[in-house]
Amino acid sequence: MSAQLKAKLSPYELRQEIRQGVHQGNTSGLAAGYVQCNLAILPADYANEFLRFCQLNPKPCPLIGIADKPGDFMLPQVGQDVDIRTDVPAYEIFEHGEHKARVNNLLDVWRDDLVTFMLGCSFSFEEPLLADGLEIRNITENVNVPMYRTNIACQPAGRFGGNMVVSMRPMKAADAIRAIQICSRFPAVHGAPVHLGDPAQIGIVDINKPDFGDAVSIKEGELPVFWACGVTPQMAIRHAKPPFCITHSPGCMLVTDLLNSRLSIL
Amino acid sequence: MSAQLKAKLSPYELRQEIRQGVHQGNTSGLAAGYVQCNLAILPADYANEFLRFCQLNPKPCPLIGIADKPGDFMLPQVGQDVDIRTDVPAYEIFEHGEHKARVNNLLDVWRDDLVTFMLGCSFSFEEPLLADGLEIRNITENVNVPMYRTNIACQPAGRFGGNMVVSMRPMKAADAIRAIQICSRFPAVHGAPVHLGDPAQIGIVDINKPDFGDAVSIKEGELPVFWACGVTPQMAIRHAKPPFCITHSPGCMLVTDLLNSRLSIL
Repeated sequence: MSAQLKAKLSPYELRQEIRQGVHQGNTSGLAAGYVQCNLAILPADYANEFLRFCQLNPKPCPLIGIADKPGDFMLPQVGQDVDIRTDVPAYEIFEHGEHKARVNNLLDVWRDDLVTFMLGCSFSFEEPLLADGLEIRNITENVNVPMYRTNIACQPAGRFGGNMVVSMRPMKAADAIRAIQICSRFPAVHGAPVHLGDPAQIGIVDINKPDFGDAVSIKEGELPVFWACGVTPQMAIRHAKPPFCITHSPGCMLVTDLLNSRLSIL
Repeated sequence: MSAQLKAKLSPYELRQEIRQGVHQGNTSGLAAGYVQCNLAILPADYANEFLRFCQLNPKPCPLIGIADKPGDFMLPQVGQDVDIRTDVPAYEIFEHGEHKARVNNLLDVWRDDLVTFMLGCSFSFEEPLLADGLEIRNITENVNVPMYRTNIACQPAGRFGGNMVVSMRPMKAADAIRAIQICSRFPAVHGAPVHLGDPAQIGIVDINKPDFGDAVSIKEGELPVFWACGVTPQMAIRHAKPPFCITHSPGCMLVTDLLNSRLSIL
């Protein structure tokens, strides 16, 4: 199927293609207009602490949904016939904080004690920024957004803690101001930026060497603008070292039936 | 009357004190919570052009009210018994763009062709910023806000034109982001900042030498944040050189019965 045709699939149709292995890899740009989620799947005895961590750190860890109870793999709250075991293109499995495997479904590893958390993702706020005529450099340059570890400490909750990870998009000052206005309407997908200007102020040593993703060009007269990033909860999970956990593979998100525009608080 | 007692006067009581000459000078900090307005009083044959100028440049020239018709000096739309000829502490009179006199009332110079424009003022947005715990440097340092001519061209309308004047308040990045959120709710009093960061990008050569008002200290790690300023329409009027016009004297505003909080769009 062509990329153009794929982009026109409904979220339900796209999830079916993913489930059947017809679509593999990145979900960026697909099912335009619909919320895509970061995933964290944790054993029940870590779930309450992780939930508290998300509530204490809503900018990097904005909760879109949680499974009703441990072991639930069907997630009707975010879409028709969503099976979290099969409907994401790729997953990463960790044991005691160590990466163990990348898999294309969870049918063999699912457990009755696993609790699924769905977290907001920057795809949802990039859409209204683009619709407003703003340029998003990582999209223009067709690379992953640059992400950086910072010295901004998250509020710890039990075994979960660590520093915030941020994503960066360079903008002219007037565009940065407009982006702050637009993103303020979307607290469920990281909300307003957390910093702009001097990267050193938040502990970033070299803006051209992101810790995750790819570097993008910063043009004369542009400011780097920093958003809280969904890699933060992944770092917090590594910090907590649960004996077993699952995340989505970067860029391979859970595509929901929720409309991005419905996340707007205004 | 002590400053403390004065601060507690209602807008109506304060205007009466001003009318009777009991209160003279600055209105900053008085009648807390109520909208204070910049004034432009122009002959009728300039009024439509100035109105168009305001509509084309709403950030520097946010209209709070206009007299119903030429010659009207009573302005019930902004408060009880408001007489624009007597209820402002000091006025500046211009002829053909040249300053002619500073007067304490307009009883001797009022004309039947004069149209009064009331424009939003930064006092109204400084209040919610302070209430949110943000520091406003010019208030901390007890000086006038620094203001600068920029290279940002206003949209011209007939004889009115020129570049935008901005006010500047230095803030840490996170505070600047919060200030953008708060001020975005108040488009009637200049709204969100128009620029932040490098002053040279908007044509400001030396941030320590404001064109109007006083310099304030900018601390390590702070960004200058720039708002469209009510001096802009005054410059536009000088540009248009009407044979006769009146403005308020800087800092000596029309205090209205309108609540600042009612200007919030959200």
